[in-house]
Amino acid sequence: MGEPTSFRCLSCGREFGPWSADHLCPRCGPITGAIEVLYDYRALGRRLGPTAFAETRRVSLWRYEPLLPLSAEYAVPLRAGWTPLYACPSLAAELGLSALWVKDETLNPTASCKDRGTAVTVAAARMLGRDALVCASTGNAATSTAGFCAAAGIPCYIFVPKSAPRAKVAQLLAFGAVVFAVDGTYGDAYDLAIQAADRFGWYNRSDGQNPMVVEGNKTGAFEVWEELHRDLPDFVLVAVGDGSVAAGIGKGFRELMKVGLAEHVPKVYGVQAHGAAAVAHAFSRHSKGEPILPAEEEANTLADSIRVGKPRDVVRAVREVAETGGGFVTVTDDEIVSAAQELARRTGVFAEPSGAAPYAGLLCLLQDGAIPPGARVVLFVTGSGLKDPEGALRGLREPAVIPPRIEAVAEVLG
Amino acid sequence: MGEPTSFRCLSCGREFGPWSADHLCPRCGPITGAIEVLYDYRALGRRLGPTAFAETRRVSLWRYEPLLPLSAEYAVPLRAGWTPLYACPSLAAELGLSALWVKDETLNPTASCKDRGTAVTVAAARMLGRDALVCASTGNAATSTAGFCAAAGIPCYIFVPKSAPRAKVAQLLAFGAVVFAVDGTYGDAYDLAIQAADRFGWYNRSDGQNPMVVEGNKTGAFEVWEELHRDLPDFVLVAVGDGSVAAGIGKGFRELMKVGLAEHVPKVYGVQAHGAAAVAHAFSRHSKGEPILPAEEEANTLADSIRVGKPRDVVRAVREVAETGGGFVTVTDDEIVSAAQELARRTGVFAEPSGAAPYAGLLCLLQDGAIPPGARVVLFVTGSGLKDPEGALRGLREPAVIPPRIEAVAEVLG
Repeated sequence: MGEPTSFRCLSCGREFGPWSADHLCPRCGPITGAIEVLYDYRALGRRLGPTAFAETRRVSLWRYEPLLPLSAEYAVPLRAGWTPLYACPSLAAELGLSALWVKDETLNPTASCKDRGTAVTVAAARMLGRDALVCASTGNAATSTAGFCAAAGIPCYIFVPKSAPRAKVAQLLAFGAVVFAVDGTYGDAYDLAIQAADRFGWYNRSDGQNPMVVEGNKTGAFEVWEELHRDLPDFVLVAVGDGSVAAGIGKGFRELMKVGLAEHVPKVYGVQAHGAAAVAHAFSRHSKGEPILPAEEEANTLADSIRVGKPRDVVRAVREVAETGGGFVTVTDDEIVSAAQELARRTGVFAEPSGAAPYAGLLCLLQDGAIPPGARVVLFVTGSGLKDPEGALRGLREPAVIPPRIEAVAEVLG
Repeated sequence: MGEPTSFRCLSCGREFGPWSADHLCPRCGPITGAIEVLYDYRALGRRLGPTAFAETRRVSLWRYEPLLPLSAEYAVPLRAGWTPLYACPSLAAELGLSALWVKDETLNPTASCKDRGTAVTVAAARMLGRDALVCASTGNAATSTAGFCAAAGIPCYIFVPKSAPRAKVAQLLAFGAVVFAVDGTYGDAYDLAIQAADRFGWYNRSDGQNPMVVEGNKTGAFEVWEELHRDLPDFVLVAVGDGSVAAGIGKGFRELMKVGLAEHVPKVYGVQAHGAAAVAHAFSRHSKGEPILPAEEEANTLADSIRVGKPRDVVRAVREVAETGGGFVTVTDDEIVSAAQELARRTGVFAEPSGAAPYAGLLCLLQDGAIPPGARVVLFVTGSGLKDPEGALRGLREPAVIPPRIEAVAEVLG
């Protein structure tokens, strides 16, 4: 494993011994005090050659154990990561790209990319001997925590806004989590989870709270690198709510550079909904030289997974995206719905609305020239359409209900 | 690839040149005239050593190309197969088993085991130059066909009973299939799909119609063999509707024997609902020496995927299960719901009701002694709980809706 050298506060730079800080820098507090896990990249670089991971038979994110902060012996069996990367040559050709891939994160154990962060966080909880977890989430991180805790036999406590889609709540209940449906926003649920973690001593997996989450998320970048035989794409697009997933992907590519396994870093673009764009706005202020501060805005979008008004990993997300030379783009709900439908129809990957947002973002970035013709692009599809089946269906024709007679079939077909 | 030597009618034994019969033996017709794909197992055995598949980097069912009837070059990108097999040691210990594994088929591309049969069938359609597919199904085979046809860019026509769960219909619509919601049973939808296939020249993927489906399904057995390092379990349990999945698993284990890669075949047990047990009844008649005939019964169960009154692969399923020395067991809807809840809570795998039926079946078989203490057992979990979220939740407590205040949390926790 990677043996972290220190846990460092993202803002004040104070370093903590590995594992001595559970969650946040006590001086800087929430959001600004997010913790980054550091390694001795030079030493790792000496150990890791270009085929470093080719020999492992592990088809999960634990194949990257040498770059993870703890041993795979603490992992629960659920297979997080090593999701497929699908080439979409005909779609690429139509868009004038030289290559387009879909990273199908819906094939994680609980059907979202959140299982990466959860896998590492739950393993850390086991290593640290923590006896209960808590997670606040719009839905996916929560169901992921509930599933992994079920597999680990650890109790978990979940805080979601009561507006969370039914399928996500169903997962939570099935996994036996104690679920609090908070009569308020995701932000309210989040703050309540922090209080409850303090009061009851629970290990907190919420995005932005726990440095292990980003350590898991970064493996998505490692997989793209390995699946493309180290020939990295030019652009990587991913939906952004709190920012931990985009931040993790950025960190992953940067770490590959630091250990000498990659020669460049793809430009990472965060995609947000027009109506819930706090991270995009923070990025824009940062580009003008302003400091990255905690932000709070209204959050309105049908894409529930990125309906985040007070993003909890905004500092990290803005920094990591900026480091890659990428940026942010916002898309309308109509564009998101069209993207979900076109993506499913063209690739066979059924995304929840937020999962399809990167495809909508791609169309915008192509139009405004930020992504040039001939580019090579990866879209992260972060969550399954089965988690919010109605979300993506707006405007689609319902099935023809027919009597069981062939004439009725012929009639429908015209 | 395996180069089939012939396609043979299961009932009259008439042999057809490979690929000369699309679907059924014309003499024996539906159900009894199902076609089996045969290979030169002796020649294959000379070519395949115990590490035959260890060197491939393919993490999909196409790693078994040497035992499949066509080249992987016709495959669409969606990653069918190579699903995880999770060890459940604490559950095994409680049940008095020496080992228990869950084969998590929910991690196939459209979230069910049906993607195996579909992957091979759609590849065959491409090889044969067929320009449209049709599928009748209770839901999962249909969504699978729609997803793979979307990825292949081939139109598809789907017939489901109008009672199919909403999430499955949502998948169909998203994938752009032409969907007929038939006002009748699955049986009515099935017969209509056959007529439509004849009239419009569509390639039919419905279970029991197309020999390619079982060729895909058999790879589930290959994976269990490889994932357990060739140390096969004693028992394999799987839910049965039409019978094609159980039949495929049986064929897979038998083929491993025939090519010399396995020394025994696990006993395969089919699990059906009490209210939809036509295959179990046929098996029971067959055990008394009666011929296996097409059956038609009432079908009532909350497990929609196995709500099959007229099973279309009954001859094959009964024969294959009998060949393994296994059998059938039926379970109540209450047992299925409890099984789904316990499976999710204990393993982190959220199954739709039919997917959890094998766990219910295991408890019955342990109780009646058919599975002895100390046995090693694999449960196939065939479909995701996200496909029918309400199905598994009966009797579970809904989340506590609370205001965003810590006192409210403390109060719920008592």
